[in-house]
Amino acid sequence: MRAVSEDDPHARLHELGLELPAPPGAVAAYVPANVVQISDALKLVAVSGQVALRDGRPLHEGRVPDQVSVADAVDNARACALNVLAQLENAVGLGNIEQLLQVSVFVRSADDFTAQSRVGDGASDLLVAVLGDKGRHARAAVGVNALPLGVPVEVAVLALARG
Amino acid sequence: MRAVSEDDPHARLHELGLELPAPPGAVAAYVPANVVQISDALKLVAVSGQVALRDGRPLHEGRVPDQVSVADAVDNARACALNVLAQLENAVGLGNIEQLLQVSVFVRSADDFTAQSRVGDGASDLLVAVLGDKGRHARAAVGVNALPLGVPVEVAVLALARG
Amino acid sequence: MRAVSEDDPHARLHELGLELPAPPGAVAAYVPANVVQISDALKLVAVSGQVALRDGRPLHEGRVPDQVSVADAVDNARACALNVLAQLENAVGLGNIEQLLQVSVFVRSADDFTAQSRVGDGASDLLVAVLGDKGRHARAAVGVNALPLGVPVEVAVLALARG
Repeated sequence: MRAVSEDDPHARLHELGLELPAPPGAVAAYVPANVVQISDALKLVAVSGQVALRDGRPLHEGRVPDQVSVADAVDNARACALNVLAQLENAVGLGNIEQLLQVSVFVRSADDFTAQSRVGDGASDLLVAVLGDKGRHARAAVGVNALPLGVPVEVAVLALARG
Repeated sequence: MRAVSEDDPHARLHELGLELPAPPGAVAAYVPANVVQISDALKLVAVSGQVALRDGRPLHEGRVPDQVSVADAVDNARACALNVLAQLENAVGLGNIEQLLQVSVFVRSADDFTAQSRVGDGASDLLVAVLGDKGRHARAAVGVNALPLGVPVEVAVLALARG
Repeated sequence: MRAVSEDDPHARLHELGLELPAPPGAVAAYVPANVVQISDALKLVAVSGQVALRDGRPLHEGRVPDQVSVADAVDNARACALNVLAQLENAVGLGNIEQLLQVSVFVRSADDFTAQSRVGDGASDLLVAVLGDKGRHARAAVGVNALPLGVPVEVAVLALARG
């Protein structure tokens, strides 16, 4: 699959049967994606913590694994990552991503849940599938007891972009 | 209010009736704010997780919302952000901030608390009120079950500064 | 101790009686350390969340302080930091570290545990002991209710490197 579209994240999205969602609009006090020029040719991009909503309601709600299954949480993490990509597309264009740097994955977890990495892979796998080598990233996946709107996963990203 | 002092964060602080607290002094193993030159004209600044103390004791103590009300937590987040500003002033001078990049807000939460964003707005609103467009930031707000000293909110920041 | 080896982190490791562990190999979806060139002479390095394993099993397992003592958690944080150093050595070489920027410490905590800073010092002290001034960092230490594999501590790092 990669050979056809090694350098075209949009072609990859198409091959994966995915469409970028509309990125949530600007919020009063903070911005969904923040772009700072750090040299003539390079920008730092911080993407705010993305959660998975459908029609304004959480796609899943609750903690993993007793209220939201691990499989659903993986899907949810993937949906968060798709929102990250939508924010990056809107902020700088996916084709201008130089490298994802750091991905933070927060998984709303039962106290004895220990497979946050498996949930995080839902996000990581999608980011690499769409962005290829430029989507490779360092990651911290941790459990938390509560998240905004009751969602099971939140994903924040730091990236470098050209231009 | 903004028109008068668009480019002067100190004038804004004055207009808001706020004074910067004394920034906590250097700690043995880590520093309250860490500045690294990344080009001739630009620095990256990382501000350590700030909490709200008064006379060395937590301003509020406990989890939101059953031990600390949402309104008190918003105030607490605002006090954390004021400490962030004090650290930035001390490290590079507020007038040299090029752009806040990323704000991380950790809210000590009851398991079913889902309004971390509302608490985070206490910090975000103040940062934007004082720094204007340069205070705009990406944000991740998450719930946690425990924080240092029992405080309800901790706020960490990554920023770019000129010079 | 510092006078002898101010600029040589490897000599410091030796003086501290420490050996760098083999850095965990590349993981499918994300990388242990991610290096991005941001100028002719400078790189940003993100190190993925490091945990303390021995022979593939957690060095300690459980939450602090009722299942893992504070003293053991401090040791665990130190072991996480040693893994951070191993990843930095593998990615860019410890001698090329320009400055640690930001250290994030997640401590799996009982709801009423409030000494996350003391646990974090286990990591911070080691990083500064080995890297000297270049190991100074901003830090956010927070409590969480769950971590991957049931470990008590996870440490992620953002750093600048020369070259």
